[in-house]
Amino acid sequence: MGPIITLTTDFGLADGYQAVLEGVIAGINPEARVVPISHEIEPGDIPGAWYLLKTHYCYFPPGTIHVAIIDPGVGSRRRIIAVSTDRYQFIAPDNGLVSFISDDDIISIHTVTDRKYALADISPVFHGRDIMAPAAAYLSRGVDPSCLGRAVTKIVGLAGTLPKYGENSIAGRVVWIDRFGNIISSIRHDDLFDKAVVRVGETTIGPVRQTFSDVRRGELLAYIGSGGHLEIAVREGSAWEKFRSTDRERLEIEVARR
Amino acid sequence: MGPIITLTTDFGLADGYQAVLEGVIAGINPEARVVPISHEIEPGDIPGAWYLLKTHYCYFPPGTIHVAIIDPGVGSRRRIIAVSTDRYQFIAPDNGLVSFISDDDIISIHTVTDRKYALADISPVFHGRDIMAPAAAYLSRGVDPSCLGRAVTKIVGLAGTLPKYGENSIAGRVVWIDRFGNIISSIRHDDLFDKAVVRVGETTIGPVRQTFSDVRRGELLAYIGSGGHLEIAVREGSAWEKFRSTDRERLEIEVARR
Amino acid sequence: MGPIITLTTDFGLADGYQAVLEGVIAGINPEARVVPISHEIEPGDIPGAWYLLKTHYCYFPPGTIHVAIIDPGVGSRRRIIAVSTDRYQFIAPDNGLVSFISDDDIISIHTVTDRKYALADISPVFHGRDIMAPAAAYLSRGVDPSCLGRAVTKIVGLAGTLPKYGENSIAGRVVWIDRFGNIISSIRHDDLFDKAVVRVGETTIGPVRQTFSDVRRGELLAYIGSGGHLEIAVREGSAWEKFRSTDRERLEIEVARR
Repeated sequence: MGPIITLTTDFGLADGYQAVLEGVIAGINPEARVVPISHEIEPGDIPGAWYLLKTHYCYFPPGTIHVAIIDPGVGSRRRIIAVSTDRYQFIAPDNGLVSFISDDDIISIHTVTDRKYALADISPVFHGRDIMAPAAAYLSRGVDPSCLGRAVTKIVGLAGTLPKYGENSIAGRVVWIDRFGNIISSIRHDDLFDKAVVRVGETTIGPVRQTFSDVRRGELLAYIGSGGHLEIAVREGSAWEKFRSTDRERLEIEVARR
Repeated sequence: MGPIITLTTDFGLADGYQAVLEGVIAGINPEARVVPISHEIEPGDIPGAWYLLKTHYCYFPPGTIHVAIIDPGVGSRRRIIAVSTDRYQFIAPDNGLVSFISDDDIISIHTVTDRKYALADISPVFHGRDIMAPAAAYLSRGVDPSCLGRAVTKIVGLAGTLPKYGENSIAGRVVWIDRFGNIISSIRHDDLFDKAVVRVGETTIGPVRQTFSDVRRGELLAYIGSGGHLEIAVREGSAWEKFRSTDRERLEIEVARR
Repeated sequence: MGPIITLTTDFGLADGYQAVLEGVIAGINPEARVVPISHEIEPGDIPGAWYLLKTHYCYFPPGTIHVAIIDPGVGSRRRIIAVSTDRYQFIAPDNGLVSFISDDDIISIHTVTDRKYALADISPVFHGRDIMAPAAAYLSRGVDPSCLGRAVTKIVGLAGTLPKYGENSIAGRVVWIDRFGNIISSIRHDDLFDKAVVRVGETTIGPVRQTFSDVRRGELLAYIGSGGHLEIAVREGSAWEKFRSTDRERLEIEVARR
């Protein structure tokens, strides 16, 4: 089978928009294999999609092309970019979605503007179908990213999502709440103190645990999730149930030195 | 990779029914590639599935076989049909689902009755798995549609969904509400007057716009959606939120000459 | 295309966990084809996943590898097992998920413990990604299940889900409620009396019917569903609507000899 193209969007699975991406890709490169990472990002939730793609992209084989389409700016002047690293290529609107790629890894960044690699008719409201999916399909056929547009040197960052560091504490935010009600923070494994106490809002959770069975059923725990971020969970329950009265955007997760 | 078989059903994604279609297809033609358009049609919503398939089918490569299974009549005497055009084949119950195919495009229509191209055991409640998926898989292997059953000359239409035309106005209905709360009407691009005012129920929306950024955040607008139909949206919001107190079936969308 | 690997999990489709399984599998065997049976099992619902997999696995071609990951015991000492039959292989935690495989069909059972067939880093909270998906991918490349770990002779059963048999009645439980509100019981076709009356809680449903059109719209019926189990439905409606005031776990379905 040919190269994998992953899709991360806020299209949902009901409306068929996600299928059309695959139809368009298959028309340009029948050998490409399409794998949805998630189509269930909340509409417009750029930090959420940033977290998901950041967490999952490395589990795909080298040569995979990752396409992210959370595009509240469609119809405005935001750019679409193609970013290449040693192992992967990314296509996304330049709105912070792929800002997790470190400068050290980036080989090139290009705008996606050449209409030769787009559908003939470009709807002003669906650049995912008409520009981004075709561009990814052409990349998967070996088209060089430099053909898609002009080189640029910087991609737009993600304001306000990364943690704030104090001398004896780190303050993070919620970037994702998963199906099990686990609350995933913007605080990463590498950020942590050796001995730490975790707090969520006014609630003290305790030290960072290894796994769910370190606490009793129904008890809250903090641990490093499979994505390398600090997560808050309830063993065999939902942590989000306990905190949902607070606005997700306002919920602060703090790690304090003990 | 082999030909694509798309699936449009009201099975949902939880129950595994959609997976069984792919298992059955893979058993008959391992080279066929299965792409779900949507399994999230509301149970029994034939106009909704009609709209989705009508909008999306052309984005798939020639040779694609489209299967639609919204089948409230399973167990009754409704027919299953195979429709061929120059580029595509369709398998569906004959209940209006594929009535968007124009008579000019249709090359042949056949009933799907020959048990040679069905599973050995046919459940009275799951013709999608036992008759339609196998028929599509055999078509994808090159079986001629005339082998599936007898030729027929007409397919059942979709009563009450197409717009009504007055001299200075067109009255349409809601055919789909997408994930973003955009309300999609049965009124098509070609139906529109040059200068028009759009109304939804008692609310005047205004002229037909090019794109979301033509209005302010939170404002209602009418525009031609990516599927070629007149849609109603709220920029960075949900139009459906504003109209959901009205029964979806009763909500009238009107375009009046200005 | 290569062998099929099916996935049955409680991961949902939003969080990307299910995609990572496919990424990991593609990295080990690019020819394997991944088909989700369901990712929408309720978190921790082992009887539900047991029913879905039991019902659907036979519709896949011989050689298919079925992976089931409902794993509330991750981080504890529960085993992961690989079960082989004449036609299929299964990978799952040994918690009852695959206990529907009859002893007669089982060729071998092995624990999955050899780290050579796992990812290099094993997260204590995501054995699906780090152990089960790689093991399935290696099986699909032809690795013998005996390489994965040591042979065992018994798999853990599913306490309390199978029906209880009296002389003139059978008492079953709810194992699944599907998208249409059909209530699927643990009572199988083979269990039934020739002449029977079906009851759900205090409600008498009547005899076992052939198909939906045997009753009027809105009426309750009992019938043998496409999975071979006794189901309760409302024609063009939802049976679950009528019974949802009772806790799903407590709802008894009884078949009495007439």
